[in-house]
Amino acid sequence: MGKTFLEVKTLRFLHTADWHIGKKLHGYDLLVDQKEIIHQILDIALTQQVDAIVIAGDLYDRSVPSVEACELLNQTFIEMNLEKKLPILAISGNHDSAVRLSTGMPWYEQTDFHLYTDLKQSFEPVEIGDVQFFLLPYFEPIAARLYFAEESLSLQAAIKKIIEKMRTAFDKNKKQVLVTHFFIAGSTRSDSETAVEVGGLNRISYELVQDFDYVALGHLHSKNALKTKNAFYSGSPLKFSLSEKDDSKGVWIVDSRSVAPEFHELVAKRDVCSLQASFEELTDPSFYQRMDRNCFWYFQLTDRSVITNMMNQLRAIYPNILGVERVNGRRETKQLEKVQHRKNTPYSMLTSFFEDITGDRLTKKQRDWLDEGLQQSLDTEKRNDDAT
Amino acid sequence: MGKTFLEVKTLRFLHTADWHIGKKLHGYDLLVDQKEIIHQILDIALTQQVDAIVIAGDLYDRSVPSVEACELLNQTFIEMNLEKKLPILAISGNHDSAVRLSTGMPWYEQTDFHLYTDLKQSFEPVEIGDVQFFLLPYFEPIAARLYFAEESLSLQAAIKKIIEKMRTAFDKNKKQVLVTHFFIAGSTRSDSETAVEVGGLNRISYELVQDFDYVALGHLHSKNALKTKNAFYSGSPLKFSLSEKDDSKGVWIVDSRSVAPEFHELVAKRDVCSLQASFEELTDPSFYQRMDRNCFWYFQLTDRSVITNMMNQLRAIYPNILGVERVNGRRETKQLEKVQHRKNTPYSMLTSFFEDITGDRLTKKQRDWLDEGLQQSLDTEKRNDDAT
Repeated sequence: MGKTFLEVKTLRFLHTADWHIGKKLHGYDLLVDQKEIIHQILDIALTQQVDAIVIAGDLYDRSVPSVEACELLNQTFIEMNLEKKLPILAISGNHDSAVRLSTGMPWYEQTDFHLYTDLKQSFEPVEIGDVQFFLLPYFEPIAARLYFAEESLSLQAAIKKIIEKMRTAFDKNKKQVLVTHFFIAGSTRSDSETAVEVGGLNRISYELVQDFDYVALGHLHSKNALKTKNAFYSGSPLKFSLSEKDDSKGVWIVDSRSVAPEFHELVAKRDVCSLQASFEELTDPSFYQRMDRNCFWYFQLTDRSVITNMMNQLRAIYPNILGVERVNGRRETKQLEKVQHRKNTPYSMLTSFFEDITGDRLTKKQRDWLDEGLQQSLDTEKRNDDAT
Repeated sequence: MGKTFLEVKTLRFLHTADWHIGKKLHGYDLLVDQKEIIHQILDIALTQQVDAIVIAGDLYDRSVPSVEACELLNQTFIEMNLEKKLPILAISGNHDSAVRLSTGMPWYEQTDFHLYTDLKQSFEPVEIGDVQFFLLPYFEPIAARLYFAEESLSLQAAIKKIIEKMRTAFDKNKKQVLVTHFFIAGSTRSDSETAVEVGGLNRISYELVQDFDYVALGHLHSKNALKTKNAFYSGSPLKFSLSEKDDSKGVWIVDSRSVAPEFHELVAKRDVCSLQASFEELTDPSFYQRMDRNCFWYFQLTDRSVITNMMNQLRAIYPNILGVERVNGRRETKQLEKVQHRKNTPYSMLTSFFEDITGDRLTKKQRDWLDEGLQQSLDTEKRNDDAT
């Protein structure tokens, strides 16, 4: 950053990405969590008095988002850009439909809301304060092959040509920021990203982007996915998989005068957590009343015995369970031999089944009920036989 | 129209509706036809030097339009509003998703592109020249019940309340135009509209709208659906069903100074046509070379005999066939009796089947082929029997 530059207004911006609006986590709808976390992002933007918000792709989770997802994103843009007057610099990611997302784009420009969804748009920088923003949306190699009229062009080669072309627009009196949505080689992935790189073909060498003052990346969901001095993944604002349970989620605040961006944490309404415990502990009020029962829980159960109706019992206490794992394995239930069944009476079969499953013996009262029930069923059977 | 009004600029606008972008006609993609017809609409707007374009709902054919449909509508709006600087007054119809269509709306307002998709927006008129436009999108009765906080409100009663409320904003020095998308009682339907009125509940009395200087209607696809002095359906710009084959399609040009609107015709790239003829005529080059083979043809075939591979033969000449009807019925083919088949040889069965279907006898060459084929199949059967 050793450039000398004219006295233009310096710039402070917020970098976020991978909102994946409309995403479901193990079937749970995240829309309320997403709405809440976006408000936290806006709050940070206002408190930190940023001059712009950068969103590096994957605004939606699907190319055809639900009506509710559309409503949330539309409302978010209205609030950020029209009400709070914050410029927005956004690109489409591999989860977005470029065409659908681009609806309204040319009108957005009037209020400094720049939403780029097409490779062709990326060469002309958006200039705000002392920064030139180059907005390079996610694209498939075929788009670059068509644009450059070259039949075989790898993604890596395409990005190289694109950056060379961008470079011709570099103003040496300004800082250059690249906003993009790709996998930078050497990054670490988590479980919630869709692998767009097949056999390494869709990886980009870090060297290609090293000359930008800042690279605002989207695609990988952990802020620690890449360790460089100028290129950062913001990560997703929420945890989208169990592998992210220990991540801290947040946004970067970047100041064109300073060397390193600052990370500002976001706090999810419902966190993704895991815990090792016994069923008895998990269902003990004195235990669970001290816990955040609303989290997306993943339990590592220490019990080995069969627990009847286990998931429903746990869900009654922890409504958002992601899964349960038996860390000590499961006790083998006795092999039920078919042949033997024929010899057993219904009564003995039912009592031994109960013992196998619960590990307990029937009480006197239960044995009486069983007797009574079997007798009734036998009577009904007889009556039916008489009737035919 | 006997009002006295101040010297404000008079207004000339184009009224269209029911574009149904993305619609398919009997499986045929209409996107190219729609693109072309929208250009004709724009051409008329420019030639007629209108001050605004009114689109009375059903811009898309489906709540989730295809990417190609989105692209066409996005591009159309850019051309009309941003490039040609024409104000647009549009509402959503029953085929549109109000939320999806509303994307970008608040930004559009900056360039006099008013796209209303919510009942709540309809009470504040858009004023251009000497006209107050009230834009009332299609809505379900539940939306009105919620808005007016009345538990049971019929559509008719809701519209009455809405228009009463609109009336409080009427400026007596201006003309009032209502843009809406409903079924006005007494209108005639064609086959391509989705019936939104069930048991008459969703019909609106014409009396409710009679006080507007002009009512720009959408929903019904024929411009002749309603006969009043001030309320007009523009109809769809293309024929979307066979029942519309004799309709003339077009747009209304409305001038705030004149009493009656003028109809301007549109000419479809591929018309919907029907014709009564024999198969021989239809496949005779001297006949079909004089016809517009590219039309969406519906043929009323005079032949009674079975015609082998008929549809493929016709499609080779007329690529866009909607259907074929046998106006004189079809000659009965001989009843094939099951019992008799057992007595027949494969050879006699095949020859008589051929005669039944084609009305011709087998030629010598065909009989030889048949003999040969049957012999081969018999040989194969024997070999298989020997092998087992």
